Amino acid sequence: MSVLSVNLAENSYEIVIERGSLASLGRRCRTVGMKGMAAVISNRAVASLYGSVVQDSLEAAGFTVARIEMPDGEEYKNSVSLGRIYDDFAAAGVDRSSFVVALGGGVVGDVAGFAAATWMRGIPFVQVPTTLLAQVDSSVGGKTGIDHPRGKNLIGAFYQPRLVLIDVNTLATLDQRQYRAGLAEVIKYGVVYDRPFFEFLEANRAGILAMEPEFLIEIIHRSCTLKSQVVEADEKESGLRAILNYGHTFGHAFEALSGYRGLVHGEAVAIGMVLAVRVSAAEGMCSQADVSRVFDLISRYGLPVEIPLYDRQQLLNSVAADKKSKGDSITFICNRGIGMYAMSHHTPEELLMLSGLEA
Amino acid sequence: MSVLSVNLAENSYEIVIERGSLASLGRRCRTVGMKGMAAVISNRAVASLYGSVVQDSLEAAGFTVARIEMPDGEEYKNSVSLGRIYDDFAAAGVDRSSFVVALGGGVVGDVAGFAAATWMRGIPFVQVPTTLLAQVDSSVGGKTGIDHPRGKNLIGAFYQPRLVLIDVNTLATLDQRQYRAGLAEVIKYGVVYDRPFFEFLEANRAGILAMEPEFLIEIIHRSCTLKSQVVEADEKESGLRAILNYGHTFGHAFEALSGYRGLVHGEAVAIGMVLAVRVSAAEGMCSQADVSRVFDLISRYGLPVEIPLYDRQQLLNSVAADKKSKGDSITFICNRGIGMYAMSHHTPEELLMLSGLEA
Repeated sequence: MSVLSVNLAENSYEIVIERGSLASLGRRCRTVGMKGMAAVISNRAVASLYGSVVQDSLEAAGFTVARIEMPDGEEYKNSVSLGRIYDDFAAAGVDRSSFVVALGGGVVGDVAGFAAATWMRGIPFVQVPTTLLAQVDSSVGGKTGIDHPRGKNLIGAFYQPRLVLIDVNTLATLDQRQYRAGLAEVIKYGVVYDRPFFEFLEANRAGILAMEPEFLIEIIHRSCTLKSQVVEADEKESGLRAILNYGHTFGHAFEALSGYRGLVHGEAVAIGMVLAVRVSAAEGMCSQADVSRVFDLISRYGLPVEIPLYDRQQLLNSVAADKKSKGDSITFICNRGIGMYAMSHHTPEELLMLSGLEA
Repeated sequence: MSVLSVNLAENSYEIVIERGSLASLGRRCRTVGMKGMAAVISNRAVASLYGSVVQDSLEAAGFTVARIEMPDGEEYKNSVSLGRIYDDFAAAGVDRSSFVVALGGGVVGDVAGFAAATWMRGIPFVQVPTTLLAQVDSSVGGKTGIDHPRGKNLIGAFYQPRLVLIDVNTLATLDQRQYRAGLAEVIKYGVVYDRPFFEFLEANRAGILAMEPEFLIEIIHRSCTLKSQVVEADEKESGLRAILNYGHTFGHAFEALSGYRGLVHGEAVAIGMVLAVRVSAAEGMCSQADVSRVFDLISRYGLPVEIPLYDRQQLLNSVAADKKSKGDSITFICNRGIGMYAMSHHTPEELLMLSGLEA
């Protein structure tokens, strides 16, 4: 078992990483002061696998449980799903003495977290992420929200959970594609912030791809540690936190252009990292050898490295719509060598040029 | 001119109360660090009166301005209005370097504030309240949000403005009914928190009802001071802040039962205070003379004191739906004598009994 503290003054919380930890959820919720009713938000697939063990654990600890389901998939991370959750809250009598449990992947966590952040101006919530992506990324840092037709995550709030409980056993039921997509965010931490971790990922690929538990706990612990360091330094994303968006400027653009269907988030980030390392090299921040090494690692983990073809203007519009844009120039995160970051500012047109997407 | 500081650590801000202050909005926004685009949210009536002076002031200070209108009325404080504002934000290119100006009454302030709180996980906003109710109540304290079909303010966030600018001249165009409704919240501060202020309101009724500017500035300044003291002590409404809900448990219930049409908010609060003072007397917290004195003041300010007739079960359900309910018992705010508060806990049935609504 591994326990990690995220230190954000009055918003501090712990991340528990363990095999089989779902069964301890009720007891741990009690420990962090939860009471009354637990509104467990999940999707059908995850609920059918883990809903009962979660409900039993919560009830055994004396909570009443209301189970709420939302549809599965990025395309349902919207105001319609959110509105239905509010309706379910009202029907179940979820009030200020209740709390929300988000049981599922990033979509469930983001939507459930935003529902918790905005119901009665904020009720406590507990994250139980069941995908690798959610475990290493969205469960740390308090970003919650939904998409708007005009862009991803345009509507949301910074809202910290009271507890994050990660049961690595849940990854056994995750499909390979989603697992590898989660590894894209793991690789990101190495490229931009932690060279020894990058080398660890190079050296232990077989064990990681085989989901050996000790490797799972290690990569999740390490990723959460790095992310929480960044979030602690910059809870509201005014500066340093932007480095977590490495690979995401182009990633979000391709994800949006695929209609959130063709590419899953981690795959889009993988492609975004291929372009980000190219931009970094074009700016003289890393060598061509670094470009190859990052490209190889992404590719060997079975992630896409081919750049999808889109109309130039569509791509420009999509990059410009990214929420990190400020006025005309975009804050773009580069890697300095491997394991360090640098920020640069460019127009979308310059980014297309620097990334080699156009001559 | 009167300037008041609301001290909430990193969320501190100033309230400026002045005749003709709208013309200084742009300059003052600059002073508190706003930049880029101002998204001015208003309703048609207010925009036609004050939209131009606000836009001119902002543009003269170098801001670009996007004007957004929402429909007028409590019944539009909902997810449809909010969704349209998000759409307008996206169309106008409102981003993290922009800010929101809420120009109007409580509905505009609540919805615009919540839109600001949740757009890109929070962009700055400035309150320019143009009704007495908004000036003395909703512009202080950072409560933002919308209603849900099942209850008022069920969806929202605590989110502080960067500046509140009150121009008492805007009250000249407010209709008498809305002005008197705002006075209900002013009276509330006296009853529950400040006996000398209660006596001031008894002694200066003529000047206050005639909207003499020195009295306007005085009652707004005093109300905002009292409210900000309470909010500073308890930003997130875990304890003391509940006293601001004096008169609101029954008030919200009658407001909801009238379909947010028959009674405006302040009128419903006036009736709620008549019942709250009766509950207080029944609990031995104040005398029958106090009951009469509160009743008389409310009545002499032209506010309703007659209790509307509703079916008992409807009323119970509506009181129980109030968001201050925790499990079965409701935290009900009483007055201890005049000028002090006390908290009590009762079921809805007990409250009907104690208030004399049933024998």
